[in-house]
Amino acid sequence: VRALTLEKNLQYQSNHPAPRAGEGECLVRVRMAGICSTDLQLVKGYMQFRGILGHEFVGLVESGSATWQGKRVVCEINCVCRRCDMCLSGLANHCRKRTVLGISGRDGCFADLVCVPESNLHEVPDALTDEQAVFVEPVAAAYQTLSQYPFTASTKATVVGSGRLGLLVAQVLSATGCKLTVIGRNAAKLSLAEKRGVQAVHVDELACRADHDVVVDCTGTPAGFDLATRLVRPRGSIVLKSTFGGVQGVNLAAVVVNEISVLGSRCGSFSDAINALVREAVEVRPMITQTVPFERAMEAMAAAGQAKHLKILLDMRK
Amino acid sequence: VRALTLEKNLQYQSNHPAPRAGEGECLVRVRMAGICSTDLQLVKGYMQFRGILGHEFVGLVESGSATWQGKRVVCEINCVCRRCDMCLSGLANHCRKRTVLGISGRDGCFADLVCVPESNLHEVPDALTDEQAVFVEPVAAAYQTLSQYPFTASTKATVVGSGRLGLLVAQVLSATGCKLTVIGRNAAKLSLAEKRGVQAVHVDELACRADHDVVVDCTGTPAGFDLATRLVRPRGSIVLKSTFGGVQGVNLAAVVVNEISVLGSRCGSFSDAINALVREAVEVRPMITQTVPFERAMEAMAAAGQAKHLKILLDMRK
Repeated sequence: VRALTLEKNLQYQSNHPAPRAGEGECLVRVRMAGICSTDLQLVKGYMQFRGILGHEFVGLVESGSATWQGKRVVCEINCVCRRCDMCLSGLANHCRKRTVLGISGRDGCFADLVCVPESNLHEVPDALTDEQAVFVEPVAAAYQTLSQYPFTASTKATVVGSGRLGLLVAQVLSATGCKLTVIGRNAAKLSLAEKRGVQAVHVDELACRADHDVVVDCTGTPAGFDLATRLVRPRGSIVLKSTFGGVQGVNLAAVVVNEISVLGSRCGSFSDAINALVREAVEVRPMITQTVPFERAMEAMAAAGQAKHLKILLDMRK
Repeated sequence: VRALTLEKNLQYQSNHPAPRAGEGECLVRVRMAGICSTDLQLVKGYMQFRGILGHEFVGLVESGSATWQGKRVVCEINCVCRRCDMCLSGLANHCRKRTVLGISGRDGCFADLVCVPESNLHEVPDALTDEQAVFVEPVAAAYQTLSQYPFTASTKATVVGSGRLGLLVAQVLSATGCKLTVIGRNAAKLSLAEKRGVQAVHVDELACRADHDVVVDCTGTPAGFDLATRLVRPRGSIVLKSTFGGVQGVNLAAVVVNEISVLGSRCGSFSDAINALVREAVEVRPMITQTVPFERAMEAMAAAGQAKHLKILLDMRK
């Protein structure tokens, strides 16, 4: 099969061995996959991952149990043991023995075929196109923010970062009716937020006052974190939505002095995400800046790091 | 008056101008004061503080309203406006216009006389010695931890750091009945925790497993924070009790991946602290490693940075 692998370097392979499904797993033929910032971090050495990259995708179940055969599916990325203390306490996404699709200990979806646990699958409703379905995983991650902070109509909230994840988080928060601002550097990306009714401010035009109840950092940079500490009110919260790739020069003095709560936030509910996409509470199509045939995956990975791009999709049907 | 001042350098002055009480303030004759790690940080440039150092003390009210005249008192360190949004929302310790005794915008207590708002005063019960009363401020800071995390008998908790603050936090947490360990480097300090019935472990003998519900960092160092991220379970909490003095090489990747809550924690309730000291729920006397006449304050400041010392008290009556 074709596959984009990360060994010492990133490599496009046209003849990678086909995966074999283990017990409880099935084989999914990938139709479309999305490139995420985490993929770019992995290439830089994050998690020391080796194998096939990719964790956002939609595909058709090719072999597995009769229940799933032929279904169009998306797939949760944490593959868990269901027996450890985390699994037994309802925190399966934090399973001690987990592998994570294309991120840790398990081949991902940048390939014609991917092997996944059946219990991780969600059927995609007909109302969603493949392009929309690819976004279920990152939209779920955006929804996780709501389970970690009680947003209400009186909440003054800011999203720092108008990239892929920032624009998804902004749409999810916007639906709560909270008083929301998105801060970014790129006019085109900020205008996408504005089209969804969210106030957008260029970082250079920001009047910084520490009066926000909650700031969601979607930059994953020390500068973004620093800005968040200057925007959030004393006793407010900062939600960290982006993976920090390595040791960072982060200053925690403000966190102590202002008694800020810093909340790490990772994967979220696929059901919430699918529902939101069906209701069009989250609109993802304007965020697709390129759809690239899989053969050009190397090119697409390079482009995904450029500021002008938002989501780049890999089309495996081509 | 005599005073220990920080301008470009730390300096002992035998003839500093006496302070004058403003409206609502009174003049307190300092009897005894304690040296805190924050004082050492301030000398290194934290907060760019200039003026008389010191914020832990007990004294006698020398002039002010009749209510307070002659009373033996301790004093909350945040001097607040009572009018800003923070004050009006019940978060006066985060007052936008606050000055902080010996830390920010206001002379502190390493002097014969100190000027403080009357509303910050608490009378010291006769049951407490001056030596104990000096600890009210740091014990209050330790109590703040309880208001930020719901410790119960089933909570698995760790205090990282067996210094001045760590040993106070350990005693406060111990009283909740939680399953508690203190981690440190200094055998003598760890044995003080053990004498109070708290399990103490040398950092080199630690079997590190991410299964603690809550870890309280009392080191204020990147290494302490890093250890905390490796001890806390996924979805657990890290309470930051020590001021981080500057930009630190802190890595937040684990906070995101394990969805940890990092909770900044600063000043706490003086009433809780006074009650705890009276009940002897917190025993501070074994923590006093030196009591030094005020004339030798410079020497005492140098000693306070040495690993062998815990609390050093300055005695102004000598």
